[in-house]
Amino acid sequence: MYIDVHGHVTAPDKLYAYKAGLLSHRGAHGHGHSGVTMEHVVEALNAPHPSFGKVSHLEHLDQAGVDIQFISPRPFQMMHSESPAKLVEWFTAETNDVIALCCEADSRFRGVAGMPQSMELDPAEWTRELRRCVNDLGFVGATLNTDPYEGLRQPPAIGDRFWYPVWEALCELDVPAIIHSAACRPPARESYSLHFVQEETLAVAGLLQSKVLDDFPDLKIVVSHGGGAIPYQKGRFYPAALRAGTTFEERLRKLHYDTCLYTRDSIEFLLRTVGVDRCLFGTEKPGTGSVKDPETGRWIDDIHLLIEDIDWLTDADRKALFETNAAELFRIEV
Amino acid sequence: MYIDVHGHVTAPDKLYAYKAGLLSHRGAHGHGHSGVTMEHVVEALNAPHPSFGKVSHLEHLDQAGVDIQFISPRPFQMMHSESPAKLVEWFTAETNDVIALCCEADSRFRGVAGMPQSMELDPAEWTRELRRCVNDLGFVGATLNTDPYEGLRQPPAIGDRFWYPVWEALCELDVPAIIHSAACRPPARESYSLHFVQEETLAVAGLLQSKVLDDFPDLKIVVSHGGGAIPYQKGRFYPAALRAGTTFEERLRKLHYDTCLYTRDSIEFLLRTVGVDRCLFGTEKPGTGSVKDPETGRWIDDIHLLIEDIDWLTDADRKALFETNAAELFRIEV
Amino acid sequence: MYIDVHGHVTAPDKLYAYKAGLLSHRGAHGHGHSGVTMEHVVEALNAPHPSFGKVSHLEHLDQAGVDIQFISPRPFQMMHSESPAKLVEWFTAETNDVIALCCEADSRFRGVAGMPQSMELDPAEWTRELRRCVNDLGFVGATLNTDPYEGLRQPPAIGDRFWYPVWEALCELDVPAIIHSAACRPPARESYSLHFVQEETLAVAGLLQSKVLDDFPDLKIVVSHGGGAIPYQKGRFYPAALRAGTTFEERLRKLHYDTCLYTRDSIEFLLRTVGVDRCLFGTEKPGTGSVKDPETGRWIDDIHLLIEDIDWLTDADRKALFETNAAELFRIEV
Amino acid sequence: MYIDVHGHVTAPDKLYAYKAGLLSHRGAHGHGHSGVTMEHVVEALNAPHPSFGKVSHLEHLDQAGVDIQFISPRPFQMMHSESPAKLVEWFTAETNDVIALCCEADSRFRGVAGMPQSMELDPAEWTRELRRCVNDLGFVGATLNTDPYEGLRQPPAIGDRFWYPVWEALCELDVPAIIHSAACRPPARESYSLHFVQEETLAVAGLLQSKVLDDFPDLKIVVSHGGGAIPYQKGRFYPAALRAGTTFEERLRKLHYDTCLYTRDSIEFLLRTVGVDRCLFGTEKPGTGSVKDPETGRWIDDIHLLIEDIDWLTDADRKALFETNAAELFRIEV
Amino acid sequence: MYIDVHGHVTAPDKLYAYKAGLLSHRGAHGHGHSGVTMEHVVEALNAPHPSFGKVSHLEHLDQAGVDIQFISPRPFQMMHSESPAKLVEWFTAETNDVIALCCEADSRFRGVAGMPQSMELDPAEWTRELRRCVNDLGFVGATLNTDPYEGLRQPPAIGDRFWYPVWEALCELDVPAIIHSAACRPPARESYSLHFVQEETLAVAGLLQSKVLDDFPDLKIVVSHGGGAIPYQKGRFYPAALRAGTTFEERLRKLHYDTCLYTRDSIEFLLRTVGVDRCLFGTEKPGTGSVKDPETGRWIDDIHLLIEDIDWLTDADRKALFETNAAELFRIEV
Amino acid sequence: MYIDVHGHVTAPDKLYAYKAGLLSHRGAHGHGHSGVTMEHVVEALNAPHPSFGKVSHLEHLDQAGVDIQFISPRPFQMMHSESPAKLVEWFTAETNDVIALCCEADSRFRGVAGMPQSMELDPAEWTRELRRCVNDLGFVGATLNTDPYEGLRQPPAIGDRFWYPVWEALCELDVPAIIHSAACRPPARESYSLHFVQEETLAVAGLLQSKVLDDFPDLKIVVSHGGGAIPYQKGRFYPAALRAGTTFEERLRKLHYDTCLYTRDSIEFLLRTVGVDRCLFGTEKPGTGSVKDPETGRWIDDIHLLIEDIDWLTDADRKALFETNAAELFRIEV
Repeated sequence: MYIDVHGHVTAPDKLYAYKAGLLSHRGAHGHGHSGVTMEHVVEALNAPHPSFGKVSHLEHLDQAGVDIQFISPRPFQMMHSESPAKLVEWFTAETNDVIALCCEADSRFRGVAGMPQSMELDPAEWTRELRRCVNDLGFVGATLNTDPYEGLRQPPAIGDRFWYPVWEALCELDVPAIIHSAACRPPARESYSLHFVQEETLAVAGLLQSKVLDDFPDLKIVVSHGGGAIPYQKGRFYPAALRAGTTFEERLRKLHYDTCLYTRDSIEFLLRTVGVDRCLFGTEKPGTGSVKDPETGRWIDDIHLLIEDIDWLTDADRKALFETNAAELFRIEV
Repeated sequence: MYIDVHGHVTAPDKLYAYKAGLLSHRGAHGHGHSGVTMEHVVEALNAPHPSFGKVSHLEHLDQAGVDIQFISPRPFQMMHSESPAKLVEWFTAETNDVIALCCEADSRFRGVAGMPQSMELDPAEWTRELRRCVNDLGFVGATLNTDPYEGLRQPPAIGDRFWYPVWEALCELDVPAIIHSAACRPPARESYSLHFVQEETLAVAGLLQSKVLDDFPDLKIVVSHGGGAIPYQKGRFYPAALRAGTTFEERLRKLHYDTCLYTRDSIEFLLRTVGVDRCLFGTEKPGTGSVKDPETGRWIDDIHLLIEDIDWLTDADRKALFETNAAELFRIEV
Repeated sequence: MYIDVHGHVTAPDKLYAYKAGLLSHRGAHGHGHSGVTMEHVVEALNAPHPSFGKVSHLEHLDQAGVDIQFISPRPFQMMHSESPAKLVEWFTAETNDVIALCCEADSRFRGVAGMPQSMELDPAEWTRELRRCVNDLGFVGATLNTDPYEGLRQPPAIGDRFWYPVWEALCELDVPAIIHSAACRPPARESYSLHFVQEETLAVAGLLQSKVLDDFPDLKIVVSHGGGAIPYQKGRFYPAALRAGTTFEERLRKLHYDTCLYTRDSIEFLLRTVGVDRCLFGTEKPGTGSVKDPETGRWIDDIHLLIEDIDWLTDADRKALFETNAAELFRIEV
Repeated sequence: MYIDVHGHVTAPDKLYAYKAGLLSHRGAHGHGHSGVTMEHVVEALNAPHPSFGKVSHLEHLDQAGVDIQFISPRPFQMMHSESPAKLVEWFTAETNDVIALCCEADSRFRGVAGMPQSMELDPAEWTRELRRCVNDLGFVGATLNTDPYEGLRQPPAIGDRFWYPVWEALCELDVPAIIHSAACRPPARESYSLHFVQEETLAVAGLLQSKVLDDFPDLKIVVSHGGGAIPYQKGRFYPAALRAGTTFEERLRKLHYDTCLYTRDSIEFLLRTVGVDRCLFGTEKPGTGSVKDPETGRWIDDIHLLIEDIDWLTDADRKALFETNAAELFRIEV
Repeated sequence: MYIDVHGHVTAPDKLYAYKAGLLSHRGAHGHGHSGVTMEHVVEALNAPHPSFGKVSHLEHLDQAGVDIQFISPRPFQMMHSESPAKLVEWFTAETNDVIALCCEADSRFRGVAGMPQSMELDPAEWTRELRRCVNDLGFVGATLNTDPYEGLRQPPAIGDRFWYPVWEALCELDVPAIIHSAACRPPARESYSLHFVQEETLAVAGLLQSKVLDDFPDLKIVVSHGGGAIPYQKGRFYPAALRAGTTFEERLRKLHYDTCLYTRDSIEFLLRTVGVDRCLFGTEKPGTGSVKDPETGRWIDDIHLLIEDIDWLTDADRKALFETNAAELFRIEV
Repeated sequence: MYIDVHGHVTAPDKLYAYKAGLLSHRGAHGHGHSGVTMEHVVEALNAPHPSFGKVSHLEHLDQAGVDIQFISPRPFQMMHSESPAKLVEWFTAETNDVIALCCEADSRFRGVAGMPQSMELDPAEWTRELRRCVNDLGFVGATLNTDPYEGLRQPPAIGDRFWYPVWEALCELDVPAIIHSAACRPPARESYSLHFVQEETLAVAGLLQSKVLDDFPDLKIVVSHGGGAIPYQKGRFYPAALRAGTTFEERLRKLHYDTCLYTRDSIEFLLRTVGVDRCLFGTEKPGTGSVKDPETGRWIDDIHLLIEDIDWLTDADRKALFETNAAELFRIEV
């Protein structure tokens, strides 16, 4: 069974037209409603998508044999840095509602909540929407953007007490956070996509050198895209770990990582560095990787095939990677 | 014949979903294309719209008997203050292309261009798109936003030499500019809708006390929404005009105004202040005023009915207002 | 009987030389005293003034037959944005004292207080001077500047809780506030005079869409210069009012307006829009309008003549406008 | 014969009321005119002044036996940091005109020009007014404010090329500059009066360690108030001078200093440090020091008496100090 | 006996290499330790120093016959404006520890503490290190930098309540503060050395016109370098003192001053102005003045010789200056 | 033969004490000289260093058998963001001079220049020091910091024309640039060490998507630390490369990378991703990795052992990696 922990919602144009409206009237027209209906959702999920190799979201799942996919908001659409904060609150709620509609439309989906991470709000206020999603909509986790300023200013480091209300809510609700940044605005030098990697690098390093995991021993964190640069650059952190009487690999194992890396050697590298038991199958499918490699004929985001190709994995390893690790961490009944 | 100089495009959701994408990836996906086709345009023009009293754009025109309508971008969607500038350029071009599609879809429409008024660009660069619209797409004028910062900072005053490249291009192309601001962002205290009024007030006062109209005697300016506060507050400007040996009414007549005011008494006030020959029929229909007054049963933006109600207007006056003034100013063949 | 609610003090040069000194030494010489005596005041009130058509303040009142005039500080001299705050406090107190001297010098005058609206102070601190003026000097109201930053930054919107201490003090003292902004500094695009209009526009729109008038049902507000742009642009606000089950005219009637508009048609427009019972006779005389119209031979600010000319007003209407409305709102014994 | 090089104009209230107006309307009323006439000037020069011990300007000169006094604008009134720049230009011109009137009113006066030192202008633009004052009004020098931001920001250091256009104009016109700062605004910690001292300290140190005096060997600089802290703190600069093969006293002698120090021992200290030939009699009378010392019965600014008391000065020294040094430097015919 | 109250530590290069490291890793390597040992300290104190005339610190003391010298951190090395605050805390502690080592190495030394005056900390937090130095290390006082921003921004004025926690701690511990600023960064126009003078000028003027000395009658303040500009410019403060019924000299005597002025006439000037009983022998030796005057063959900072040269001083005066004043103020047993 | 392209100078404390002095006096003491002599250099190179496992620099080289080591300034000491720019210029020159001394002291060393990358200077000005180092001191390359603001602000992206003067100078001198950032200041969330990785990630992505390598086909770039995150995250860039008709691996091969990664699997990953011919042996020894792994008994930075362990490398591969690639790229005669 394939549980893909890293999917994003494929929403109808109506949701984004609603967003464009919010950014234009800045709240003058009120919260209103995106107008998205079940019909729109079903159409969007089945529509061949030009950005996704002209194949629909559901067909992508069919082709890859995904049994369960977690879907969260498209991160780059989250607009956490927009003002006033109510725009962020409204759009996040509408997006989570569309995700809920998708879950209703196709039983393969499980919802992962976005939070209205406006820096004009206190993080405790962000968690109201998280509670709604988990308690009312049955979502299984949340994405966490470590840079709500989206590149405009430096946010508090991930180890800062600023973030504690989020950790508290996650522990209380007993759901994991998936680290995944959102957009990235000028004057930052990177695109949003590279920003994901940079933020994941900061998140892993920041969490492991902070007291967060001591203060919240039950906190469950999944880092997207295989942990940014850290596994590959791990040697740089060996001396400090040695001085502290441990190894950096041990430290790395306090977090979980998804396999959303698009190359077999990178995935192998991750698995060997942090251990199979710390990794979760994740594809971001359909998405950036939904392009066919002319040489192999595969979709670049056919991560299940890359994992199947790794010959040294046991059946138990594969079951853990594809199913059990995620099922246990997110308490999914399979 | 009714020529309505103040309409905005009713574009398909796809255009705004494209905009939402631009604001998310900030250019990382390139210019691309909104994906809007003639089919989408026709559907959008004929779709009953929840914000417009559940009546379609074309049906609104039918009901009001509008023969020709100028359509420009929805001003509050223009996002002139977004960065980097290429986002503004791309979205403006896509929007103007959708307007061109509408003109092709229904012969009642004439295009009025938006310009990519990013303050990261020189105004001379804005006019490239203006030239394209007039020369290649056959548009008859342009909207001009006097506050491209959209409330974030103070822009140069309208009399400043900063704006001269725009005046030069308008004169060279021999098309009028329609003053109409765009969105308005925090920390401004007003909504975009009140911002229109404030900017029109500033524009009329600023143009009349500057040298712009002396330096560009052929420049044609239409001020939306009846000139903001100025006609009603005209007495405040009498002393300065008297000192200069003229009257303020004479000065006001250097500009044109549309009738988009929604009440008969305001329209009458405008006509009596600046003269029928300075006014153009304009409705912004469908739009803010597309709500039925329960008492009269009329749409609030049924401005043609308000004008018909003004008993002291002659037939010649009405023909001028509804048709000839606009036809001459914009060189429309009727 | 004519009660003119909109007059400003004609103070001796000494007061402004004192102000110039404050702005130069920034408090190093202490509060001191403007040095203005009754003698200076009498001379200033009787001196032909070059800015006021070479006629004195008192002669202007004589010519117009004004029986009672409210005088407040010259708004553009208020310098609310100067720093440190004590300069604003000192100059406001000196100005209010000169107003008190004027009231003593001529029984036609009633004082309207300025408040030291420095943004370095809490609004509750502003009201100390208001209390002194009402309780000790017998003033009948206060002017309120909705933009104490004088164009340098965006102040809190008028519906914000920031302003509540002022509303509380006004209700407690049972005196009205007259909305009237002060100066306007670069980089704003408008002169102080146009700034008045812009701020009044914001004030009316902001108050009517906020909860202020619900939270302070006894609050009495007079908006200067006929309410800025709002009466003329009223149609723009019809749809929202309709959706709320009322009319915008009903909403407008929650405030009062003065007639300081300088043209008969504008005054008529105001009276018809908000009702005679919501309007107060106000001239700002002598002031901006103290220029003779060569055609009519009248002073532009001869607003009593404009009102007399309105043929559809009944005697009762005129009495209300000229006397009773103001007498009741400000509790003036006549 | 007493030539007092450090006096400031005692202007009528009208000039400062004019300034207060400029700061209120920010240019909306145009340049206009202060309205100061010869009559006002004569009255002001003869009026007993509350800030000056209730004695008039002319009586102060009579009492001290001053034969010639240079008068420049009251420095703290110069408002160089106000915006827009035209306010500074207008007020400076009006002030210089009042100084010219004073010179006409009493033959004892010689004019020293203020320059419109707005940082929105280029220093070359400041010198237009200097040329007018020297060429048209017969002024003998100029004051130079080394901090035109008046404490709001850091200006370029006095040795910076920024100031070169001023040095060029002074040399071309062959008139000295008198270093004297103007006002000082928050958040600076000092009053304008202490700011004078701080700026003079910076000016002496800055000029002596820059190349200005090498690049402009004919430049004539007078530093007010005895050179700030530098003569007293001279030892601090000995090592650097020694390393350069000279003495700091020699360096100090490249500038001139006035005696405006109010105590005999400070004046003696100055004379002994820089030499009698580098010092000019200056009193700033009437001004800060126009207070009677109850013990001595003298005015604190009776600097001529302090100098007369210095027993080691020869008659030739006194003549140089009181007359010849100034006459030669400023080319005054005596 | 000579007690020199104004000396700074001559620390080994290791301390400054440690500082350079802190400023490079910004805390990433932790507090660590400068690595300075007693051996390094002894070597540094005995090493001929190129900046100090190629003579060692101890030899300078020997030559001048100094019996006791107070040593505080080299002020310009204090780096109070660096961020994050822990860098300032760490370096201050290491420096104070080196001072303690010096005191242990040579019985002539007494420690004067630096405080970690980061503006990211509350002044109450600064005093923890002061308490440690006085209580644990036996230090006799503290230096106080009145500009912890080091020229980057305006700090609170010295009379502001911001500084009260420092005054409280000083009084509680019964030790004096020595006013001495630290470095000075661009865009300030002065070097750190002139900054000392400017800050001392501000400190004397600021303390004497504030309520600090009334609120803390037991507070003991020593101003370095003879009080900046104030003694020399004292006349400027006479009028205000007279108005308050006192003399400025009386006011000046509320503070103490050191003699670190490098010229006999300046020292005489100071002694005559504030009284011998308010002055303390101080040399800043070795330091800025450790250069030989080729003419006299003396070190410029041979301040004991300058004082010996003052012929009008009595033996009692000299004893007070050189020994008793300091011994009493700092409670030194001699 | 081992050529180690990634070493940093082990300088005497005197160099850093000199730096600490510069940061304290901000230029007031002039450029001066660090005072470092050959004797100091020899002592520093032979001193057991507490941060480097208590083993000296030379002994580290001996133990590892390094034949030639390139040494550049310690990156985190470069202080590019300090002001004024002359501090950066002076310290860079002193550091390069110390590197030259090291090269003289031990024939194993080759110099790699630091440039004075102050953002107050034009990049063309930086290259003066580069020319001096290459032409006069015989250096073989330069380090390039892609973030001269050191985390305080966003610098221009590496593809921006801002950097072109540097590329021009490198090509003209025919020396490679080694990408290596410097320090990282608050409010950045990462330490300088993680900043290296982030900047290398940005540099590789930025260079490969810009026109730099097209415009400068002869430009030679070595990216430190194995290219940041990019090799590991390479799959993320596959789709864009495919769309451009190439593969991302081909693109990656336009740059060179050093092996400074500290773990065998990471080095293997790098070699397999970009090819042995694109990799250069680099150790950063002694440095961050100079800690003994208790399990293996090896230094963490014994990168030569890690490479020797890679069993699939041929002898030719090893010779290329250890010697020939570097010798050819940097034109080293071996």
